[in-house]
Amino acid sequence: MDIQALRSANPDHWMRATAIRALTLDAVHAANSGHSGMPMGMADVATVLFEKHLKFDASAPHWPDRDRFILSAGHGSMLIYSLLYLTGYEQVTLEELRNFRQWGARTAGHPENFLLDAVETTTGPLGQGIANSVGFAMAEEIQRAEFGRKLVDHYTYVIAGDGCLMEGVSQEAITLAGRHKLGHLIVIWDNNNITIDGEVSLADSTDQVARFKSAGWHVQEIDGHDPEAIDAALAAAKKSGKPSMIAAKTHIALGHAAQDTSKGHGALTDADQLAAAKSAYGWSGGPFEVPQEIKAQWEEIGRRGAADREAWQQRLATLPERRRTEFERRYAMDAPKKLGAVIRALKKQVSESAPKVATRKSSEMVLEVVNPVMRETVGGSADLSGSNNTRTADMGVFDVDNRKGRYIHWGIREHGMAAAMNGMALHGGIRPYGGTFMAFTDYARPAMRLAALMKVPTVFVMTHDSIGLGEDGPTHQPVEHLAISRATPNTYVFRPCDTVETAEAWEIALSSKTAPSVLSLTRQNLPTLRHEHKVKNLVAQGAYVLADAQAKRQAILIATGSEVEIAMAARDALEADGIGTRVVSMPCMELFAAQDEAYRKRVLPAGPVRVGVEAAVRQGWDRWLLGERGRESKAAFVGMDSFGASAPAEVLYEKFGITADAVVAEVKRLLA
Amino acid sequence: MDIQALRSANPDHWMRATAIRALTLDAVHAANSGHSGMPMGMADVATVLFEKHLKFDASAPHWPDRDRFILSAGHGSMLIYSLLYLTGYEQVTLEELRNFRQWGARTAGHPENFLLDAVETTTGPLGQGIANSVGFAMAEEIQRAEFGRKLVDHYTYVIAGDGCLMEGVSQEAITLAGRHKLGHLIVIWDNNNITIDGEVSLADSTDQVARFKSAGWHVQEIDGHDPEAIDAALAAAKKSGKPSMIAAKTHIALGHAAQDTSKGHGALTDADQLAAAKSAYGWSGGPFEVPQEIKAQWEEIGRRGAADREAWQQRLATLPERRRTEFERRYAMDAPKKLGAVIRALKKQVSESAPKVATRKSSEMVLEVVNPVMRETVGGSADLSGSNNTRTADMGVFDVDNRKGRYIHWGIREHGMAAAMNGMALHGGIRPYGGTFMAFTDYARPAMRLAALMKVPTVFVMTHDSIGLGEDGPTHQPVEHLAISRATPNTYVFRPCDTVETAEAWEIALSSKTAPSVLSLTRQNLPTLRHEHKVKNLVAQGAYVLADAQAKRQAILIATGSEVEIAMAARDALEADGIGTRVVSMPCMELFAAQDEAYRKRVLPAGPVRVGVEAAVRQGWDRWLLGERGRESKAAFVGMDSFGASAPAEVLYEKFGITADAVVAEVKRLLA
Repeated sequence: MDIQALRSANPDHWMRATAIRALTLDAVHAANSGHSGMPMGMADVATVLFEKHLKFDASAPHWPDRDRFILSAGHGSMLIYSLLYLTGYEQVTLEELRNFRQWGARTAGHPENFLLDAVETTTGPLGQGIANSVGFAMAEEIQRAEFGRKLVDHYTYVIAGDGCLMEGVSQEAITLAGRHKLGHLIVIWDNNNITIDGEVSLADSTDQVARFKSAGWHVQEIDGHDPEAIDAALAAAKKSGKPSMIAAKTHIALGHAAQDTSKGHGALTDADQLAAAKSAYGWSGGPFEVPQEIKAQWEEIGRRGAADREAWQQRLATLPERRRTEFERRYAMDAPKKLGAVIRALKKQVSESAPKVATRKSSEMVLEVVNPVMRETVGGSADLSGSNNTRTADMGVFDVDNRKGRYIHWGIREHGMAAAMNGMALHGGIRPYGGTFMAFTDYARPAMRLAALMKVPTVFVMTHDSIGLGEDGPTHQPVEHLAISRATPNTYVFRPCDTVETAEAWEIALSSKTAPSVLSLTRQNLPTLRHEHKVKNLVAQGAYVLADAQAKRQAILIATGSEVEIAMAARDALEADGIGTRVVSMPCMELFAAQDEAYRKRVLPAGPVRVGVEAAVRQGWDRWLLGERGRESKAAFVGMDSFGASAPAEVLYEKFGITADAVVAEVKRLLA
Repeated sequence: MDIQALRSANPDHWMRATAIRALTLDAVHAANSGHSGMPMGMADVATVLFEKHLKFDASAPHWPDRDRFILSAGHGSMLIYSLLYLTGYEQVTLEELRNFRQWGARTAGHPENFLLDAVETTTGPLGQGIANSVGFAMAEEIQRAEFGRKLVDHYTYVIAGDGCLMEGVSQEAITLAGRHKLGHLIVIWDNNNITIDGEVSLADSTDQVARFKSAGWHVQEIDGHDPEAIDAALAAAKKSGKPSMIAAKTHIALGHAAQDTSKGHGALTDADQLAAAKSAYGWSGGPFEVPQEIKAQWEEIGRRGAADREAWQQRLATLPERRRTEFERRYAMDAPKKLGAVIRALKKQVSESAPKVATRKSSEMVLEVVNPVMRETVGGSADLSGSNNTRTADMGVFDVDNRKGRYIHWGIREHGMAAAMNGMALHGGIRPYGGTFMAFTDYARPAMRLAALMKVPTVFVMTHDSIGLGEDGPTHQPVEHLAISRATPNTYVFRPCDTVETAEAWEIALSSKTAPSVLSLTRQNLPTLRHEHKVKNLVAQGAYVLADAQAKRQAILIATGSEVEIAMAARDALEADGIGTRVVSMPCMELFAAQDEAYRKRVLPAGPVRVGVEAAVRQGWDRWLLGERGRESKAAFVGMDSFGASAPAEVLYEKFGITADAVVAEVKRLLA
């Protein structure tokens, strides 16, 4: 690469872009860790994007109508940190750059939305950013349709690398975007031909241009170091009416001895090479020094959107108050006041009518009353709409000619769905929920984990949550997936036993601002067990006494979801034998763990024998059976210790020994 | 669709294909459950494939040189069960068809390799079969290169549906196959335009032909009900020299009232409609009745490969004995005799030299001695070769012009890698292992679960297994992934503390015939803790006393992997204070759980306080801390209860409180 030619062709642009390269080299050198090559290679693209296209105001990172910038190739985090520092975002000081990747810094190894306001989404696990972006772009379309262009009219820009495009989830994302003609989504592919192991050709020979075209995208190919070409491509992309991919041919670690090599992908820390690169760039500043003039140019760029933002705020202010407060409520993620009322009304009604329905159906009943009063919900399913019961009458289907539709047919794309839902939640103004079979938690896992890490309240509606799924067999029967979700920090895992608990679980999930929820719901019908209407949300306590002992309390049965019915039947049999038995329904272990000890002790006192009942593996249960005043010699678990099998559900429960009889036998054995 | 025209155009073919349709209708009707439409739509394709192309012998399902047939669209399981019954495979009797999807039947809801010998891989979770097939085809190439065409020369055929092609993992599979020009891989796409939610166009508008071409595939488009076109396409595909995709336009539920609808995808159980369909087909037999003549034709097809197989067995028999027994050993999955010897030699050597290395490096040291004596290993990494330490000097890199290469650059495709490794193991003759960061267990999960369910000994080399990963931060730091793998039935999760334990873990993993292994390995250096050489494999006991109390035993510290060093340091400090402390290393909880109680009691006696130490979530630990004679008031855990952070590893251990000091403090608190 002829650096001198680049410098002389566009000297002002060059120095602005080189500020990113120099800061990257300095920060990685200081941290002795990080990824230098990508920010150095993409500095030209990012400079033109921020200077001429990205609608933003560095003083207002939360402005709802800003363009979104997503660094899907999150290892190149110094690109975004440099840009935020240069343009004057308050949170990214020079000190933060100096502390890149250190304890307590906002400038983490990979960009984290919960550390920096201007980071739209947490990236690093490859493919996630581009998959999130589909949700961002859908959220924009949906809100533009509802609130109009004057309030919502922005683009989502993504920088993705070869790694993002190799990950399967990118295909799910690309095909979704193409199907829905998401014209406000623009992906710039950092086409640098290098991955960690070496040249891309070691592992891949895909014609990415043809691939994106096959998914219905507008595609351009440019020299990623030519600012005019970058500018023109971005302008054309915005007008294309389709999702647009710009294949930007770049040189990783541009101008460094490691340029165009896999070494250049990683941490370039050699001091001499660093000095040589800076010298070739014509960059004379010392470590972390950006010449005043260049910093001033960048800060001007950071203020470029201020007038737009002020005009937008004027427009917001002139809206009818009701409409304005509704818009603001959604972005504040406050649940509408009516939510509590409709939940309570449903609880009251079903406590009385006591329907025997699957909790997936219970969930639909909840959504039928919630969706009309909570217009920010966007539902969907990964091609299991009729099974997940996620669609309600009022939603409409999101489509090219129905952007107001609030239901999305995600197709057979659990991972893409989960990641896009995260994107919607991160965009703001939307509460996404989506369904699949619980066993396919596996497919959605990378995005489910990121929801928890990113603190976004995405709701995962996981139906067919045990061997109760029946004939489809062990590939479709979760046994370890409750444990998997419960093992994940900052995740609510709800397993309601009837419609009342399902309503309470949904109320918590839809009120959460900082944690995702997993709803574990049955295929099979369950009786209503909460007959006595209570205004209070009992699920919020995580576990509670559903039925107390009549005779002297000798046993406590702890159960969740479909197994609460079994525990209740076992209680009947035990009481008939004079064995006083309490049934504790435990729909949410995380919330129960968060209760104070006095409450936990009231629910789980020392003394009685304890039997846990859940059609899943025991892992996670010992805390409640052996801990919390429990003892090994007085505790047992009735559940699964293997994969399931293919047969009707009732046969499976019998064959795997998850029955009231088995529970009774365990209690008697422990009492003997 | 004009059924009469189809019937009259190819009457003999029609009746053979219709036997599949009729059996499908009958079995789904009997089960009142299942998926009718796909087998009915793909009956013509399958008939031509089995009749004219697939090399197989129904009497010898294990014949190593058979062609492989993979039903990636596994919900259409009655297609494969019908074919197996019709062609005369012993395990699929009429009784099995009558018991479709019932307890104890081999004819499970989805095809399961562990129930039926002729089922090459377990499918149902969409995209898995096509991703497995890449491994099958690679395994064939590798073995053909080593053993020659006379012994290894077969094709892998896949039937995939729209769902398979929408799943992201299919893109990983397709691009891998294209990159490696896997010319013996032929995928037939059941292009029926229908998914569960409705028409494919609801969720997808991808030009699949262009997509496959962009990945370097040979592509043909045919009428999937025209036997001549099917035959010609299969013939052309075999000659193409590339992976080949045949887009077969079909009608789901052909000839039934539900044809071409999403209803047709599911269980067609209406008796009148069933009768009407059979009548239109010209099928007069009652339920499960196949006319003698048609059954005879199919059985002839089932014998078609017998001569080929016998000739093949002759060729095998004439091989030099050493070569023949080597071939047979590999297919029997017996470890070579030398394995134990090289493992013991390495253990002895490192017990003496006591290197301080990361266990990922330990793993490389093991592989350096194992790979030369175990030529069936095929290693790889998802673009982290230098980090996962999976490549050894002797392997060579698998490529178009080096089919003998035993190392695969999988690219940034953790899921595709895991699924393809399963395919290799299922193919036979290969022991696959592959690496990524442990946090990316999430990406590989669907295939990791299936490895466990399918009982294949794939080895997942998961490095950077805790906050010890350091600066890359929480997106890359596993905290829940040990729990996730441990929650999965039939999976060995090894977390070795030094090179000796790593060698022992590998020995078990490479000797396993029925369970996958997860190796949890560190980024950071660890001291050698096993100084005294023992021939015996101590990891095989799951947990053992690494260092016993010197003073009167008051505490037991149980630790794994990198935290055993911490436990040992805590023991030193406690012993110095007169508190006798045992350290139990617990590299494999599953194997410890499988020991008899006497042994477990010797390792974990009642009495002393217990502290578990692992830089991960507590879930799964209570079994050893509170159970196994433990008690809540005398147990504690030092580990993680949140996601990690971005900082140097040693800082993170300090800040998250996973230190010898913290362990000492917990012991003293419990003893106080």
